[in-house]
Amino acid sequence: MSVNATEILYGIHPVLEALRAGRRRIFKIYIARDKITKRLGKVVDVAESKKVPIKKITAAQLELMAGIDQHQGIGARADAYPLKRVADIMPAPESADANFFLLLLDNIKDPHNLGALVRTALCVGINGIVIPKDRSASPTPAVSKASAGALEHVAMARVTNMVNTVKDLKAKGLWIIGLDIASDRSVFSGDLTGAIALVIGGEEKGIRPLVKKHCDFLLSIPQSRRINSLNASAAGAVVMYEAFRQRSLRK
Amino acid sequence: MSVNATEILYGIHPVLEALRAGRRRIFKIYIARDKITKRLGKVVDVAESKKVPIKKITAAQLELMAGIDQHQGIGARADAYPLKRVADIMPAPESADANFFLLLLDNIKDPHNLGALVRTALCVGINGIVIPKDRSASPTPAVSKASAGALEHVAMARVTNMVNTVKDLKAKGLWIIGLDIASDRSVFSGDLTGAIALVIGGEEKGIRPLVKKHCDFLLSIPQSRRINSLNASAAGAVVMYEAFRQRSLRK
Repeated sequence: MSVNATEILYGIHPVLEALRAGRRRIFKIYIARDKITKRLGKVVDVAESKKVPIKKITAAQLELMAGIDQHQGIGARADAYPLKRVADIMPAPESADANFFLLLLDNIKDPHNLGALVRTALCVGINGIVIPKDRSASPTPAVSKASAGALEHVAMARVTNMVNTVKDLKAKGLWIIGLDIASDRSVFSGDLTGAIALVIGGEEKGIRPLVKKHCDFLLSIPQSRRINSLNASAAGAVVMYEAFRQRSLRK
Repeated sequence: MSVNATEILYGIHPVLEALRAGRRRIFKIYIARDKITKRLGKVVDVAESKKVPIKKITAAQLELMAGIDQHQGIGARADAYPLKRVADIMPAPESADANFFLLLLDNIKDPHNLGALVRTALCVGINGIVIPKDRSASPTPAVSKASAGALEHVAMARVTNMVNTVKDLKAKGLWIIGLDIASDRSVFSGDLTGAIALVIGGEEKGIRPLVKKHCDFLLSIPQSRRINSLNASAAGAVVMYEAFRQRSLRK
């Protein structure tokens, strides 16, 4: 990724949360509405307080810039997404945080699912998210939109080799827990406390075999009927919140 | 709704599950692919076993019929969605099922959220879903698609007055439990066992005040940070599965 790469964020939440998070430079805010609603006004206020220039343009111009019509009348020229190095979201080797909680998303392909998972992850206070470089949705403006801006606040790293990351995390004392529909052990009976990395696989095929092999244990979400299955973001919400529940009890 | 109303279902799961559920007549299956993939072939097999005529058309024709391009090469002319009367999804007055579990969706506007909630509801074995006639997404083919066909199996009723339904359910001995972000009582400390109706409100405003007033108690999903909130379908997944978990323990 070029050092100077910029992109167009769009939608009220992504622009507002990017301004609030302050992790990427916002060069300009584009407004494509004649009437400034209360929600738009809030973004304008924050932008002004941060001395970000605001420019009025037409909806057609914004649509062209953002490449999408669901911009809610607001866009922002911003630095590329501030990915972390994977080393930056690892627990410190000496003082291993007993409650460290990582999310590993192994090949989530749909930007809406990735956004929804990021949004839930922020709600449960995840320490970081790891995604693979290939065969995965990237942290694009569309994902920021689908996450309601949560992407602007989470720590996310992208790795070439997820198996190596899993091995590194194991070496640092984390338990690696995979969500696998074929497991006969329920998330509700598994132990999700302590320093853990939770692995959720892609929409169609789940966790890749080599990654799965390195999980300490696999858990499934029980179902009353086997007609269908949960979608990836619902499954993620259930398991992340079961971890949250168990971890709250331990405190 | 006219007795003779039909609609075009589209997508592999909706068509397959409608055939399997057998709740609405399928008049014809339309295939718009030259190559029959394994997944399409499965639908064709079921259609043939049920003696439903299959017609080959072009993708452009199917897109026109379905009004959408995400048809995955398959459509079906079917009866309108088989809504239940609300009386049909009420627990029997004399022999109240101690584990009766209803879902009341108060003004979910987005078809994708409605579909996702229906899909999760089927996984937890819900007895029925109630939606309001106005200001709510309807059980359209788009919702069936978003639910991965789960809509074809759940029992859903649509009511004019949700408050009256809540009162009726209370009179039948159900506990009415609302999900409300403003409540300081957590879903993880609330009792979700027994005969209950779980109320989830719309994306923007939550449960309407009059409906909320008639809830026996309100619960919220705790969050680690208050930057953002869960989306409606993730919140629904968390609370439905917390109910599932508590109810499994009681058995």
